[in-house]
Amino acid sequence: MPKPIEPRDRRPEAERLGRPLSGWRLKVYTVIFEADTRAGRSFDLALIGLVLFSIAVVMLESVASFRARHGTWLTVSEYLLTAVFSIEYLLRLACVRHPWRYARSFYGIVDLLAVLPTYLALFMPELYALVDVRVLRLLRVFRVLKLSAYVAETAMLVEALRASARKISVFISVVVMIVVVLGTVMYVVEGPHNGFSSIPASIYWAITTMTTVGYGDITPKTDFGRAIASLMMLVGWGILAVPTGIVTAEMTAQRRQRPATTRTCQVCLSEGHLPEARFCRDCGASLPPYQRD
Amino acid sequence: MPKPIEPRDRRPEAERLGRPLSGWRLKVYTVIFEADTRAGRSFDLALIGLVLFSIAVVMLESVASFRARHGTWLTVSEYLLTAVFSIEYLLRLACVRHPWRYARSFYGIVDLLAVLPTYLALFMPELYALVDVRVLRLLRVFRVLKLSAYVAETAMLVEALRASARKISVFISVVVMIVVVLGTVMYVVEGPHNGFSSIPASIYWAITTMTTVGYGDITPKTDFGRAIASLMMLVGWGILAVPTGIVTAEMTAQRRQRPATTRTCQVCLSEGHLPEARFCRDCGASLPPYQRD
Amino acid sequence: MPKPIEPRDRRPEAERLGRPLSGWRLKVYTVIFEADTRAGRSFDLALIGLVLFSIAVVMLESVASFRARHGTWLTVSEYLLTAVFSIEYLLRLACVRHPWRYARSFYGIVDLLAVLPTYLALFMPELYALVDVRVLRLLRVFRVLKLSAYVAETAMLVEALRASARKISVFISVVVMIVVVLGTVMYVVEGPHNGFSSIPASIYWAITTMTTVGYGDITPKTDFGRAIASLMMLVGWGILAVPTGIVTAEMTAQRRQRPATTRTCQVCLSEGHLPEARFCRDCGASLPPYQRD
Amino acid sequence: MPKPIEPRDRRPEAERLGRPLSGWRLKVYTVIFEADTRAGRSFDLALIGLVLFSIAVVMLESVASFRARHGTWLTVSEYLLTAVFSIEYLLRLACVRHPWRYARSFYGIVDLLAVLPTYLALFMPELYALVDVRVLRLLRVFRVLKLSAYVAETAMLVEALRASARKISVFISVVVMIVVVLGTVMYVVEGPHNGFSSIPASIYWAITTMTTVGYGDITPKTDFGRAIASLMMLVGWGILAVPTGIVTAEMTAQRRQRPATTRTCQVCLSEGHLPEARFCRDCGASLPPYQRD
Repeated sequence: MPKPIEPRDRRPEAERLGRPLSGWRLKVYTVIFEADTRAGRSFDLALIGLVLFSIAVVMLESVASFRARHGTWLTVSEYLLTAVFSIEYLLRLACVRHPWRYARSFYGIVDLLAVLPTYLALFMPELYALVDVRVLRLLRVFRVLKLSAYVAETAMLVEALRASARKISVFISVVVMIVVVLGTVMYVVEGPHNGFSSIPASIYWAITTMTTVGYGDITPKTDFGRAIASLMMLVGWGILAVPTGIVTAEMTAQRRQRPATTRTCQVCLSEGHLPEARFCRDCGASLPPYQRD
Repeated sequence: MPKPIEPRDRRPEAERLGRPLSGWRLKVYTVIFEADTRAGRSFDLALIGLVLFSIAVVMLESVASFRARHGTWLTVSEYLLTAVFSIEYLLRLACVRHPWRYARSFYGIVDLLAVLPTYLALFMPELYALVDVRVLRLLRVFRVLKLSAYVAETAMLVEALRASARKISVFISVVVMIVVVLGTVMYVVEGPHNGFSSIPASIYWAITTMTTVGYGDITPKTDFGRAIASLMMLVGWGILAVPTGIVTAEMTAQRRQRPATTRTCQVCLSEGHLPEARFCRDCGASLPPYQRD
Repeated sequence: MPKPIEPRDRRPEAERLGRPLSGWRLKVYTVIFEADTRAGRSFDLALIGLVLFSIAVVMLESVASFRARHGTWLTVSEYLLTAVFSIEYLLRLACVRHPWRYARSFYGIVDLLAVLPTYLALFMPELYALVDVRVLRLLRVFRVLKLSAYVAETAMLVEALRASARKISVFISVVVMIVVVLGTVMYVVEGPHNGFSSIPASIYWAITTMTTVGYGDITPKTDFGRAIASLMMLVGWGILAVPTGIVTAEMTAQRRQRPATTRTCQVCLSEGHLPEARFCRDCGASLPPYQRD
Repeated sequence: MPKPIEPRDRRPEAERLGRPLSGWRLKVYTVIFEADTRAGRSFDLALIGLVLFSIAVVMLESVASFRARHGTWLTVSEYLLTAVFSIEYLLRLACVRHPWRYARSFYGIVDLLAVLPTYLALFMPELYALVDVRVLRLLRVFRVLKLSAYVAETAMLVEALRASARKISVFISVVVMIVVVLGTVMYVVEGPHNGFSSIPASIYWAITTMTTVGYGDITPKTDFGRAIASLMMLVGWGILAVPTGIVTAEMTAQRRQRPATTRTCQVCLSEGHLPEARFCRDCGASLPPYQRD
């Protein structure tokens, strides 16, 4: 039976972070954190636009042909955007009463990760592409468009996951054990000269097979290896196919037991009588003959 | 609870488009738009035949060996068919009272797309193959064979999709964010010399992995990259496997609680009465109280 | 609502084919067609053994290394087996009263296909491998092991498929239309020099993508092509993931509504009360407090 | 209805194996087999740590670069670990009253397989990697962390599988027959020069296709072969997609029939009463009759 839900801090973000008392801080806060006023809404929409633009910039910079032609513009845009996002982050910290709570919250971390890569890239240039992590800022879009319904449904989904967390971890543990054992067996059977260069590589291959991804960069060549691979493929696919088939069979059986028809007893008004039933199961009265449409 | 269905214009196509008053227009309309008369049915069947033939022509023209041997016949056939379909389209416009409604409707657009590519191909020859879009005309086949039941079930399916549109878009947004972020991470980890030539290419790879398609044209080579890829594969496959397993477990639990099979009526010996039923549905006799075994 | 099941000839095979009257025919019939006697059972078991052996022979003959070493023995075995199966087939025809019914039945056709390829291979040697079709004879194994339960469950499965035949054909039609249209679009976008050599080849590629098989023998190279491919992959995988997610969400919602507990009302003995309920929903009596185990 | 569960020996491991009477054996037994005391818990945790460490050692030894640098340390560690596990195994045998029962049990066999490969590798060095089978010892982790709930849920899962064992074997038999027959057909159609080198190889290809893994190491080249492959792909994917769609359609239909959400008690204002409930479960008041909207 479902456990009672532990109480979590579900107060609106405003309360948790501490609405500031007065002055310019309050004005800034209203614009940045709240989306009820027109200014707040415009700010959020502008923010989304900037985030999308910044992601496009980073993506295009990674395409060699584009970089050759527009490299300078892209770099300038990126620096400007990073400056804007940094100032925004500092403003956020400045205008709430509990800045540390904001910095530790999910959105706070996302906002920090949105500006950090550009600075890290000054030291390690190859990390530059991680600027794309900014896309997580788009999770704010749900709040902007007043889609509390979306938020509610996502919360429900997350709760369903928590409730099943135990079953899921048992399942994942079993899958991990299977890929480790069978990956190792394949390493022994096929060997490095057939592509299975090490046990970790073989486990990687086992995962591509169980999950039916099947890249094909490593494939079994020996007959025994192919036999084991066939078994793994049937298991990985069967884990999807067998329960689906069982569920469908159950549903069909239930449906035949209890077709949700609108056939109504005239005496006691109970519904859902089977097509072939002649008497009402709740009051025993005779049912009118069944007319098929 | 399910939202009330917004009223949509569900009048038969005939009414919506405006049945013409008299004369040759009415005759043509009856043949083309309505399938109740024998002429109308024959017309529709001939139409389907022509569409299938025309698709076969376009497909064969793309196969080099076939084109070499029968190219001329194929080209001639295609021009004839396009002429026939164009005349038919003009007739449709001509014989309804509200031609503009027809041109804007789904079927109207499909019929236009069926003839347009051939004309566009006069200017841009490589678009010629888009003649295959004609296959969408085959959606009329449901109406021809008087398969209103099919139409009903498709409508039900479409409604089910609308009802879940919100959940679906949340889900898709999350998947898109995952592939953007992890695709970018892989670009940084693997790099262009390992096949991940740009961020868009890496995102394309991430999609092939999450959806378990796994072409293998781009594959991770580094150990860290393979580890991340393994995680993505397990998530993409797990999103299918885990809910399926949860649903099956629930079903099995419910089934054990509520077997609806052995309860027998003492009078007429029929079985399968529901636990809460008090009267036999076949003879109306009173059922003994339900005892669990 | 489910249609009434059309009456099919469900009499046991014996009755349908016509039990012979007397003599050696009756004896042979009892051994071959019926599995109740010890001779009949032994015959069926021997038959299964021979079928399995014959399949192994054909498989091994296709492996070049094996053929080199044992080719003669394999060929001799195959001819002997074909002779045995041919004689058995003729005996079957000879000992029933209605041989034509047997020849037309499913098992009759399977038995014929089991011997035919060897004879055809005298004229067209490359058809020899089709001897493997003999494996369908193994469907008899269900009858041998007195597994009427298996047969019953298979029949139930087949009926479930028939009931949904309409929905399934709508679904398949839509999938076929999608792969034809998008396959053609990819042919136009990518072109033969990128591997999409003809429209049929592109449709083949579209099917490998929608079904998430993803061989990788043909892959999109252009950015626009990869974008379309990404959409197709998300649709093909989404068609599996989205309904699964919806079903799981529904189930979870229902479960929270109606956890199938064993909590029983002491007064009216109704069950399945929610953990937090304090009064019985059927008689209004007070429920004992809920004890969690 | 579900069969009654056959009685299995469900006594705790301690009773089944036979708790020793006295002395040092009892002390050792308490530490090794029981996890209630602090010593027992520490032992189990240490064991898990050693198993994980040993698996890491074996994996790293298979990576050529690692072996070059730290080969000696890895070998020494492995010998020490094998010695520890061997001693532990012998202790287990020594301190129970029925050592043979332990050796035959699932955990007993797992523990034996955990030490055997190292000894076998003295004769057949390439079997060394099978030391990874030790990972199965981690199944003890559920017992250590007092996760009887996990064990319960796994047992439930295993029971569900047993109940459906019949359906599952029918399903698997059909799939096996399909891949044998269609694999053979493809062997005949494509032939060895197209990659389908033998019938077993073709069956291996058929399995990669039906299970949507699609390595791509063998792919059909002829048009007819690709057509057959397309059919197989649609079947393999359809077996997942079609039932999922049917189940979702059923669920949606049922949900519309039986919304269990809006019925409100007039007295205490609680919601979500079942349609057939007559009394409020929270306050016992009589509910107004259910009116469908």
